[in-house]
Amino acid sequence: MYGIVFSEKVVLSYFPQHFILASLNSTGQGHQGRFAELVIVLIVLLLVATGVALLSRQFRLPYVTGLVLAGLAIAEFLPRRVGLDSSLILNLFLPILLFESAINTDISRLRSTIKPILLLAGPGVAIAAGVTSLLLKLGLGLGWIPALLIGTILAITDTVSVIAVFKEVSVPSRLSTIVEGESLFNDGVALVLFSLILKVHSTGSITFLEGLQDLFVVIVGGSLVGLALGYLSVGLFVRLDDPLSSILLTVAVALGTFQIGQVVGVSGVVAVVVAGLIVGNFGLSGSVSASSRITLFSFWEYAGFGVNTFIFLLIGIEIDLITLWQTLPGVLLAILAYQVGRFVSVYPLLAGVHLFDRPVPLRWQHVLFLGNIKGSLSMALAFSLPSTIPGRESLIALVFGSVLLSLVGQGLSLPWLVRRLQLVRFSEFRQQTEELQAQLMTAKAAQDELDSLLKAGVLPKSVYEEMRSSYQVKVAAAEKALRDLYNRRPEELAATNKDLIKFDAIRRRLLLAEKGALNEALRKRILSEEIVQSRIQTIDEQLLKLEDD
Amino acid sequence: MYGIVFSEKVVLSYFPQHFILASLNSTGQGHQGRFAELVIVLIVLLLVATGVALLSRQFRLPYVTGLVLAGLAIAEFLPRRVGLDSSLILNLFLPILLFESAINTDISRLRSTIKPILLLAGPGVAIAAGVTSLLLKLGLGLGWIPALLIGTILAITDTVSVIAVFKEVSVPSRLSTIVEGESLFNDGVALVLFSLILKVHSTGSITFLEGLQDLFVVIVGGSLVGLALGYLSVGLFVRLDDPLSSILLTVAVALGTFQIGQVVGVSGVVAVVVAGLIVGNFGLSGSVSASSRITLFSFWEYAGFGVNTFIFLLIGIEIDLITLWQTLPGVLLAILAYQVGRFVSVYPLLAGVHLFDRPVPLRWQHVLFLGNIKGSLSMALAFSLPSTIPGRESLIALVFGSVLLSLVGQGLSLPWLVRRLQLVRFSEFRQQTEELQAQLMTAKAAQDELDSLLKAGVLPKSVYEEMRSSYQVKVAAAEKALRDLYNRRPEELAATNKDLIKFDAIRRRLLLAEKGALNEALRKRILSEEIVQSRIQTIDEQLLKLEDD
Repeated sequence: MYGIVFSEKVVLSYFPQHFILASLNSTGQGHQGRFAELVIVLIVLLLVATGVALLSRQFRLPYVTGLVLAGLAIAEFLPRRVGLDSSLILNLFLPILLFESAINTDISRLRSTIKPILLLAGPGVAIAAGVTSLLLKLGLGLGWIPALLIGTILAITDTVSVIAVFKEVSVPSRLSTIVEGESLFNDGVALVLFSLILKVHSTGSITFLEGLQDLFVVIVGGSLVGLALGYLSVGLFVRLDDPLSSILLTVAVALGTFQIGQVVGVSGVVAVVVAGLIVGNFGLSGSVSASSRITLFSFWEYAGFGVNTFIFLLIGIEIDLITLWQTLPGVLLAILAYQVGRFVSVYPLLAGVHLFDRPVPLRWQHVLFLGNIKGSLSMALAFSLPSTIPGRESLIALVFGSVLLSLVGQGLSLPWLVRRLQLVRFSEFRQQTEELQAQLMTAKAAQDELDSLLKAGVLPKSVYEEMRSSYQVKVAAAEKALRDLYNRRPEELAATNKDLIKFDAIRRRLLLAEKGALNEALRKRILSEEIVQSRIQTIDEQLLKLEDD
Repeated sequence: MYGIVFSEKVVLSYFPQHFILASLNSTGQGHQGRFAELVIVLIVLLLVATGVALLSRQFRLPYVTGLVLAGLAIAEFLPRRVGLDSSLILNLFLPILLFESAINTDISRLRSTIKPILLLAGPGVAIAAGVTSLLLKLGLGLGWIPALLIGTILAITDTVSVIAVFKEVSVPSRLSTIVEGESLFNDGVALVLFSLILKVHSTGSITFLEGLQDLFVVIVGGSLVGLALGYLSVGLFVRLDDPLSSILLTVAVALGTFQIGQVVGVSGVVAVVVAGLIVGNFGLSGSVSASSRITLFSFWEYAGFGVNTFIFLLIGIEIDLITLWQTLPGVLLAILAYQVGRFVSVYPLLAGVHLFDRPVPLRWQHVLFLGNIKGSLSMALAFSLPSTIPGRESLIALVFGSVLLSLVGQGLSLPWLVRRLQLVRFSEFRQQTEELQAQLMTAKAAQDELDSLLKAGVLPKSVYEEMRSSYQVKVAAAEKALRDLYNRRPEELAATNKDLIKFDAIRRRLLLAEKGALNEALRKRILSEEIVQSRIQTIDEQLLKLEDD
C-alpha cells in the first residue's frame, strides 16, 4: 500500500545513529509512534495524486506526466527522507507491475504479433543499447563500461507510461499489442544485458560466446521457472476458488516467482511475465468461478494503479532540479543518443518484417519510435549501479534527467502524434451515430434544465412548453435519424466490431447497475447473503463474457 | 500492502548498530537490497494465509482463528524481527478497518437500533471495564492504574472477529446491527477511557467532572471532525467521479481523518467512523456512477481482508508460547474477570431496554455476551502502555494470552452457540421469495440505468425500447411468480413471523422515505408544521410496530 521509504543515501545524514536507535526504541508512545509520520506523508501523497487526477483530466495531460510534475513541485515541502529505493522498486513494485500487465495480456493476441515483438525486444534492444552507448562514449567521453550500462538503461521502454498514453488515445489493437508486448519483454532483455555488463565489469572480461550462453540460460531458465510456478499456482487456484484468498495467492505468486528467479540465477523479470501470462490465460479462465476472476482482475487493476501512482510521484520527488540543471547538456545529449539508437533499431528492423509476417505500416513505426518513453525501471537500475563504477553520482543524474524529460516531452507529444497520424479512422456510420447521439444528449440535457426551472417556478408554463417543444423537435429528429441509420445498416452493425463496442459498454453498465443493486440490498439486509452471492456470480460471468472482446 | 514491520523490542537485539548502518547503506546491491528479505517474509505469510484459507474451510474453523494458530506454528521459522508494531496498527491498520466497517454500515439500520448500541458501547463499556478492573486488582493484586488499564483493554470487543464469525453463520439482521454497531463505537469509548486513565497516571489525578468533560469533548469533537471531513470528501467525489482515483481519495480520507482527530486532540477513532458512515451513505450513492461505487466497495473489501489477514497472522507470530504458559493462571483469571464484567454489563443493561425501545430477546443477549471476542486493538493498546507503568511486560503477556484464548475459544464457540440457538430459520418459502425479489430488483435497477442512458442521449430510442422490454419480461415473470407464491400460501405467510422480517425491512424503508419527504416538505415550507408532525407521529408508530419481531 505505501511506497514511501527512507531513501538510502539521505537517511544517513538525517538519521544519525542515536536517532535510529531512538526511533527503533520508541515503544510505548501510542499513536505518536514512528509510523505516524509515514502515514502523514502517505496522506499528502494520496491527496496530491487525487488533485493530479482532477487537473490532468481538465488540462488533457497524461496522468503519469502530471504525477511527475506534481512530485517536482511538492518535493520542497516534504521531509527529505521520502524518496525512491531501488530495492523496493525491484523486489516489490516491478513484479507487481509486470504481473499485472502479463495477466491482462491475451496470449492469442500476443502470438499473432509475436514476430515484430521479438524483433524489437531482442535485436532491437541490443542495437539501440549499442548505438546509444557508442554515442554516449563519444559525446560525453565515458569509459566503455559506464557507457554500455547507461546505453542499456536507456534502451528500456517503460511499459507503464506507454500503456497509460494508449489508454487516452485509441490506436489499432495490433499496434497496441506490439507496443505492450515489446515493453513487457524488453525489460527482461535489458535487465539481462545490464547484469552481463556488470559481470564483465567485475570479472574483467567474458567472451562473446560466454555472453550469448549466459543470455540464453538466463532467459530460457526464467521462462521455465515462470512456467513451473505459473502452472503450480493454476492448480492451487482451482482448489481454492475463494475470491479474497485468491488475491493473496496471486500476490505470493507474483512476488515469489521473481525472487525464485533471482535466487536460481535466471531472469526474475522473464519468470514473472511468463507466470503472469499463464495465470491470466489459463488460471483465470474456465475452472475458476467468475467472481474469483473479476475480483482478481479488479484487485490487480487497483494494485497496478496504486503502484504506478506512487512510482511516478516519487520519481518527481526524487529529481533534484538544481542537479538536473547542471547536467542538462549531458542529459540533452543522452536523449539525442537514445533517440538515434531507437531510430536505427525500429525502422531498419521493421522494414524487413514483411518478408516473414504482416508488414508494420510506416505510420505505426513512427509511434513505435516515439513510444520509447523512459520510466521507473531505468531509474531503479541507475540507482542500483555499484559504487565501483566511476562517476556513479553523475551517471545517476544523467539517467534521472533523461527520464524526466522523456516523461514530460514524449508523454505529451506521443498522444499528439497518434492523433495527428489518424491511426484510427471513425467509420462514416459511427461518426454519424455519434453526431446524432450528441444532438440527442444536448437536447435532453436542455429539457432537463427546463423541467427543473419549471419545477422551481422560475418559468411560466407557457414559455416552458414553447421552449420544450422546440427541443422536442430536435430530439424526435435525432431519434428518427438514428433509427433509420440502424435499420438501414444492420449488416454494417454486425460487420464493424468497433460500433458494437459501444453496446458492450452499455451492457456492461447495465450489469454493473444490477450488481450494485444486489450489493446495496445485501448491505441493507433486504436480501440474504447466499442469494445475492449466486446472482452476483451469474452477473460476473456475463461481465466477463462482455470483456472478452 | 505489507504489514510486516520490525518489532521494536526485538530489533535492537538483532540489529546491532553497525548492522543497521550497513543495511541502510546498502546502496548499489541491486536486487539484494534490504527489501528483499521483507518481500520474502511477505511471500511466506501470503502462502501461509492461502493455506489457512484452504484448510479452515475444510475443517470449518473460523478464518481468523486459523490465522492465529498458523501464526503460532510458523513463528519459530521466521526471522524474529517479524512482528506487530502498535504504531502501525493504530495509524494504518485501525483506520482502514474502521473505515471499511463504517462505509458498509447502513445509517438507517443503525438508527433503528441506536439505543441498545449506545447502551452497550457507553455505560456497558464503563461497567465492564470497572468490574474487570476490580476483579483483576483483587485477584492478581495489581495497583489501581494497571488494573484499570487492563480492564479497559479487555472491555474492547473486536469488530473484525465478530463480523468474521457472523459472515459464516447467519443471524437476524437487527442482532448483527447491534453487534457490529456496538463494536464500532466501543472502540472509541474504550480508547478515550484508556487515555483518560493514562492522564490520571501522569498528572496524578483528575476529578470525576473533569473526566466526564474530557470524555464529552473527545467524543463530540471526534464526531464533528468526522462530519466535516466526510462531507468535504463527498463533495470531492462527485467532482472526481473516476473509479481508480476515488480509491486514493477514500484512503486519504480514512487515514487523514484519524490523524487530524489525533492532532486536534479529539477521538480519531470516532472521527473515522463518522466520516466512513457519511462517505458510505451519502458519498457513494446517487450522484456517483455505479462503477465508481463498485470499485470503491470492492477495494475496501480487499483492503479490509488483507489487513485482517496480516493482523491475525502477526498476532499469532507475536505470541510466545513459553511466556504464555508461565502467565497462564493470570490469563485464566483475566478471562474470567472480563467475562464477569461483560455478564454484569450485558444482561442488566439490556433487561431495561424494553422500557424505552423494542426489547432485545434473551437468546440474542447470549450472543452479545459471548460475542465479546478480543483482538488486535487490545494487543495494540497493551503494546502502547508507557514504560512508567509497573510490571509493563507481564501486563502485555496477560493481554496477549487473553486475546489468544479469546480468539480460539470464543471464535470457535460463538458460531456453535449461534447455530445452537437457532436464531434464523430459512424456510423454503422465504428462499423462493428472496430469489424472485433479487430477480425483480436487478431487472429494475437495469431498467433505471437504461432510463438514465436514454435520458443522457447515449442510446437511441429503438435500442432502448428493445433492451427495456427484454427486462420488462423478467420483471413481469418475477412479479407473477411472487404473486402466485403469496396467493398459494396465505396461511404460511401469516404463520411464520420470520419470513415477514424481510418485508419489514422494505416497509421500513418506505416509511422512512415518507418521513423524509415530509421533512423535506417542511423544510421547504410546502406543508405546515402541525400536519407534518402528526403524520410523522403516525409513521413513527408504524415503524415501531414493524420493528417488533
